[in-house]
Amino acid sequence: MKKLNIGMIGYGFMGRAHSNAYRKVSNFFDLEYQPVLKAACARDAGKVKEFAQKWGYESTETDWRKLLERKDIDAVDICTPNNTHKEIALAAAKAGKMILCEKPLSMNAAEGEEMVRAVESAKVPNMVWYNYRRVPAVTFAKQLIDQGKLGRIFHFRAKFLQDWTISADVPQGGQGLWRLDVHAAGSGVTGDLLAHCIDTAIWLNGSVKNVSATTETFVKERKHNLTGKVEPVGIDDACIFMCRFANGSMGNFESTRYARGHKAQYIFEINGEKASIAWDLHDLHRLSYFDHRDEGPLRGWRSIHVTDGDHPYMKHWWVPGLQIGYEHSFVHQVADFIEGLSKGKPASPTFRDALETQRICDAVLKSAKTGTWENVAS
Amino acid sequence: MKKLNIGMIGYGFMGRAHSNAYRKVSNFFDLEYQPVLKAACARDAGKVKEFAQKWGYESTETDWRKLLERKDIDAVDICTPNNTHKEIALAAAKAGKMILCEKPLSMNAAEGEEMVRAVESAKVPNMVWYNYRRVPAVTFAKQLIDQGKLGRIFHFRAKFLQDWTISADVPQGGQGLWRLDVHAAGSGVTGDLLAHCIDTAIWLNGSVKNVSATTETFVKERKHNLTGKVEPVGIDDACIFMCRFANGSMGNFESTRYARGHKAQYIFEINGEKASIAWDLHDLHRLSYFDHRDEGPLRGWRSIHVTDGDHPYMKHWWVPGLQIGYEHSFVHQVADFIEGLSKGKPASPTFRDALETQRICDAVLKSAKTGTWENVAS
Amino acid sequence: MKKLNIGMIGYGFMGRAHSNAYRKVSNFFDLEYQPVLKAACARDAGKVKEFAQKWGYESTETDWRKLLERKDIDAVDICTPNNTHKEIALAAAKAGKMILCEKPLSMNAAEGEEMVRAVESAKVPNMVWYNYRRVPAVTFAKQLIDQGKLGRIFHFRAKFLQDWTISADVPQGGQGLWRLDVHAAGSGVTGDLLAHCIDTAIWLNGSVKNVSATTETFVKERKHNLTGKVEPVGIDDACIFMCRFANGSMGNFESTRYARGHKAQYIFEINGEKASIAWDLHDLHRLSYFDHRDEGPLRGWRSIHVTDGDHPYMKHWWVPGLQIGYEHSFVHQVADFIEGLSKGKPASPTFRDALETQRICDAVLKSAKTGTWENVAS
Amino acid sequence: MKKLNIGMIGYGFMGRAHSNAYRKVSNFFDLEYQPVLKAACARDAGKVKEFAQKWGYESTETDWRKLLERKDIDAVDICTPNNTHKEIALAAAKAGKMILCEKPLSMNAAEGEEMVRAVESAKVPNMVWYNYRRVPAVTFAKQLIDQGKLGRIFHFRAKFLQDWTISADVPQGGQGLWRLDVHAAGSGVTGDLLAHCIDTAIWLNGSVKNVSATTETFVKERKHNLTGKVEPVGIDDACIFMCRFANGSMGNFESTRYARGHKAQYIFEINGEKASIAWDLHDLHRLSYFDHRDEGPLRGWRSIHVTDGDHPYMKHWWVPGLQIGYEHSFVHQVADFIEGLSKGKPASPTFRDALETQRICDAVLKSAKTGTWENVAS
Repeated sequence: MKKLNIGMIGYGFMGRAHSNAYRKVSNFFDLEYQPVLKAACARDAGKVKEFAQKWGYESTETDWRKLLERKDIDAVDICTPNNTHKEIALAAAKAGKMILCEKPLSMNAAEGEEMVRAVESAKVPNMVWYNYRRVPAVTFAKQLIDQGKLGRIFHFRAKFLQDWTISADVPQGGQGLWRLDVHAAGSGVTGDLLAHCIDTAIWLNGSVKNVSATTETFVKERKHNLTGKVEPVGIDDACIFMCRFANGSMGNFESTRYARGHKAQYIFEINGEKASIAWDLHDLHRLSYFDHRDEGPLRGWRSIHVTDGDHPYMKHWWVPGLQIGYEHSFVHQVADFIEGLSKGKPASPTFRDALETQRICDAVLKSAKTGTWENVAS
Repeated sequence: MKKLNIGMIGYGFMGRAHSNAYRKVSNFFDLEYQPVLKAACARDAGKVKEFAQKWGYESTETDWRKLLERKDIDAVDICTPNNTHKEIALAAAKAGKMILCEKPLSMNAAEGEEMVRAVESAKVPNMVWYNYRRVPAVTFAKQLIDQGKLGRIFHFRAKFLQDWTISADVPQGGQGLWRLDVHAAGSGVTGDLLAHCIDTAIWLNGSVKNVSATTETFVKERKHNLTGKVEPVGIDDACIFMCRFANGSMGNFESTRYARGHKAQYIFEINGEKASIAWDLHDLHRLSYFDHRDEGPLRGWRSIHVTDGDHPYMKHWWVPGLQIGYEHSFVHQVADFIEGLSKGKPASPTFRDALETQRICDAVLKSAKTGTWENVAS
Repeated sequence: MKKLNIGMIGYGFMGRAHSNAYRKVSNFFDLEYQPVLKAACARDAGKVKEFAQKWGYESTETDWRKLLERKDIDAVDICTPNNTHKEIALAAAKAGKMILCEKPLSMNAAEGEEMVRAVESAKVPNMVWYNYRRVPAVTFAKQLIDQGKLGRIFHFRAKFLQDWTISADVPQGGQGLWRLDVHAAGSGVTGDLLAHCIDTAIWLNGSVKNVSATTETFVKERKHNLTGKVEPVGIDDACIFMCRFANGSMGNFESTRYARGHKAQYIFEINGEKASIAWDLHDLHRLSYFDHRDEGPLRGWRSIHVTDGDHPYMKHWWVPGLQIGYEHSFVHQVADFIEGLSKGKPASPTFRDALETQRICDAVLKSAKTGTWENVAS
Repeated sequence: MKKLNIGMIGYGFMGRAHSNAYRKVSNFFDLEYQPVLKAACARDAGKVKEFAQKWGYESTETDWRKLLERKDIDAVDICTPNNTHKEIALAAAKAGKMILCEKPLSMNAAEGEEMVRAVESAKVPNMVWYNYRRVPAVTFAKQLIDQGKLGRIFHFRAKFLQDWTISADVPQGGQGLWRLDVHAAGSGVTGDLLAHCIDTAIWLNGSVKNVSATTETFVKERKHNLTGKVEPVGIDDACIFMCRFANGSMGNFESTRYARGHKAQYIFEINGEKASIAWDLHDLHRLSYFDHRDEGPLRGWRSIHVTDGDHPYMKHWWVPGLQIGYEHSFVHQVADFIEGLSKGKPASPTFRDALETQRICDAVLKSAKTGTWENVAS
């Protein structure tokens, strides 16, 4: 089997999730390339060594520029905060490395456009880790839509609800909390959570024409972990937006970190002329499905336990009824990335695909300021 | 419209449930006869007057023998404790009255046989209030089975779980608590709760051949409300039994009043070769249905909201999505009883139908004593 | 017991629901007044006679002006299409009748203001039939909020989804379908369905400051039942709006008749600092509740079966575990209306309460046209 | 880190599940020993090589006796059919190897006793792969019971329902189907599925005194894959049993492979005086919990999403809300086995623990034949 040498930048939550995916994929999928954990890179030499040892990385680097110079690295995986994605990606493209970049692609669409130009002119394979496309139930939803099972779509609804920042004592910034720091994250729930919903939405339901949004920051000031001072909070704590898709359907999106009782409740529902589907990350191995073509009195929402061999990706795992979890979506994404290399047909979402999400996020944040409908740039 | 003059004996929980049914049925169903609340009867003159006034009964009696002598009474409704059913029913049959008797039919099969002989030789219309047959979702289950949707049946499972007698401070006997007094009730959960499960089971799945059972009385002594003394508890607090149906399928039944968290959770599930169904009294307007003939990857349990016009009884009520409740099962039973009069085809379960449940209960209680399988008498 | 003589105007779906409530309330509640079904009124003499007979109305009228002249009528119930509410209500107030008016109060806020002035200057008791306030689970939600169980509110979310107009073959206008005719209904889902959501929202979460909305009419033309011709559809088939409440919380509302699989799915969820609650009309006897003060690892959403004696209204019905249905909300509303008469403290929502919903609907429809945020008039 | 050299015997479903656990455990847990995939062993040289390559085993063997002779093997993992467990385990104990044996321990209690004597006299660490003890929700249930949250236990109920053998065309015997061959499996659902339920039950609720059971073989003959002939089916297709636990509670167990719609629905529910808990393998990351001590009207079943850092094992994985799956239970069991080695306190269930399950299975199968209650041997 051919080797695909991975250089990992960052070692946080996503560094672990991706490392696990690289390590597992060859045990469960038959692929042309086997990922090899070649090098882990982070500024803190001690911590990156510990991480490398835990996961079996063969070597470490403390400067990502050094990593990019290494000839034994085929692909770099960018798992650092959002405000570093562009610089690293541009350099990686120049160095001719394949790039797997954690979502969101960038701080905004302008950055994203530079990144797309970079990878496309360098012709390096590239992908953004919108992992929820590869949850089997979500992939199955895509198949059903593509088969025409839903018919004309009238409504797309998505929510991503959390509750972990309700306490005003949660600080902002620094290790593990950079998502609350507007300088590192770019935005709050819009870029962190709604970006996931948007990525799924455009994949399942096509492009978005325009949006009308509102945002809120419930806790106005928080202690900043890096400065030690109480500072204004620059991110959006919550965001609601309405939109129109190019296919004429209506979108309703909402995200917040102030919905008590929801840890990571990413839900979407799609209502078509003939059928509807719904999915909930909290029970990610199930898909809800209603088919109007069922015999009249027997119509009802079906709860499909997406664990059979004829469900997407599932023949690679266990037996019907035995569920997989969150981490498996990353394994699937690595498998598809490698398939894409073999077939010369890139796995989605590429940087270009992910740029569309960035443009919608920009329109959402703009509308929240202007109070009017904003077109999505194209 | 012709009148059907009702004489109600008893004014407890069931007295109210049945009175409500008689009062409502003509508003929602087009029937040949309209029930008229002619007389209410109970020993306590004050209480029965109050009851009669509340419900619009035209008159009262304090002796059920007097009620039976009245020419203006067409049908008597027996809502008194189990140990009085036989005597009243025999006299009512002799007086030529139609009889609607609260379940269980009797204290045991021997009593039940006498009652069946009485009503059949007097040729009076008769019915036992196993109301759950008329919950639309349950009636719908019956239709699906009769249509052959399930194919060969392998399993029938039913539970009736409550938790209201866990505290040892709950007394036995007397008003509202006679169900805990073996002399008034005959048995505990077997006659009170499992009788419901058994009635539904034989209706849906045919007769039972033999049973193996175990019972338990967790709280051995309770204060008796009538004597004021602490006395041994004679009823079964819990009962589990296994059985074989005549069609070869296996039954698993359980009831208890010691299942913390369950108020009145009557659940059944039927597994057939082609399809399965399940129902839960706590959400009585829903039926769960799994059909193996659905397209492979789209198979899943459907939650059918049984509120459409093409569901049993539902065209008489509101519009799709708007649920009815517990009390409506009694309205349907009155409607069917009257339909039965019109068509000369008695509504089930008749006394004879209900006798079979009595025989199974007897076999269950016997098996719990002998520790072996017992055949159901026929 | 004193009598409360009812004059019913209209005999459609709501005529039945209200009649049932008047008939039942005294069987289950101890009240100072007993409603008497004195007269039913509608233009079609034959149909209103049939209706009166079915429900036990003592007399009929074919002209509502005649009904208002009758001395033996204490209260009139307006169950006619929306475009007739104002005229009848103004005349009824002038005639000194109590008025129970089906929701929505009026075609728009201007009409509603006239109606409020009329009943307030005439000092006649008045109420609007926003019945969902009296579903026990919803009333219980109100109690929990009033007790401070939720703390500061961050989010209010409501949806009312149906699917019965997806087919372009459904005609508009005429008996049973006037809700699709803009001239009779005033608006589509906004006045018919969102009005319910808004009424509940302002009751539970206080007043709304401003809104931003979008509407859609998916099927542009339908045959009109009265003219027999294909005519443009004037109503909104779907509506989404975002809003801010006076308490700073964010609202997200949506309604449609194009959500395949939903018959009458009215759902709301409220996220507070300490607890969250959610409710679904499809299982109206349950309330979902999450309390952050529960012991850490034991936190979870509770599904409360709102059927206990200590739940609102429930001591009047059956026993724990036995559910009531849709129709009971109307019984409760009659009971509260009569309680209000006895205590001289009107039951909500009065015409004045309902006017606020009308103002929000107006702002929603205006915003859908202007594409900007609109303040709610006060 | 110290190494723990694993010799795997068998490469089927469980060979994969265990290999995955050995490979992953060190990435997520800090342990004294790191498992090393030293050798894989199976009769078919080609297939075992392929398996070894897929999973990274360093070497292969085709004779398990040879594997036991190797000095570089610390622990053997027995993943072969049930009828081979005893012989291999006895030899492994003699060779001084640690033994991790797939469940059930043996064909019957007599075999199991020999095995227990062997490992205990050889003093080799030993464990049986009853993996469901390590599903976090199940481990959490154990914690709650041990904390006394449930109080006195009244009822234990468990079901393990599948539907994959309904078709009479499913053959018996041979690769992947040895579970249907009584000579290889010993019994049907009793040893395969109920053994899981029993293991969990005795862990959570203590020992079982006596049982009364019934079994059924619905399809009497099936083609045998090894002989190519239609042969009588010797296994039980379905089994129901009732039992008494030593603590006085009542047990109700059922398993079948003829429950249409259930892939691997392992459910249990425990009713205690103060609280109840329920779990379902189909949503294994949730635990249902009802606590009677909750404030009266707020009582309800909680659905606990067992994914927080303070839930068993979960701090090792992702973040709250992100679920793990079936395979993780094996990772946890390896982690606990290694912890046991470090602390000199063996991880449960040991061979001795698993022998109790074997004795209960024997009593169940005996009772199914005798039709009476059978005591569990001790």
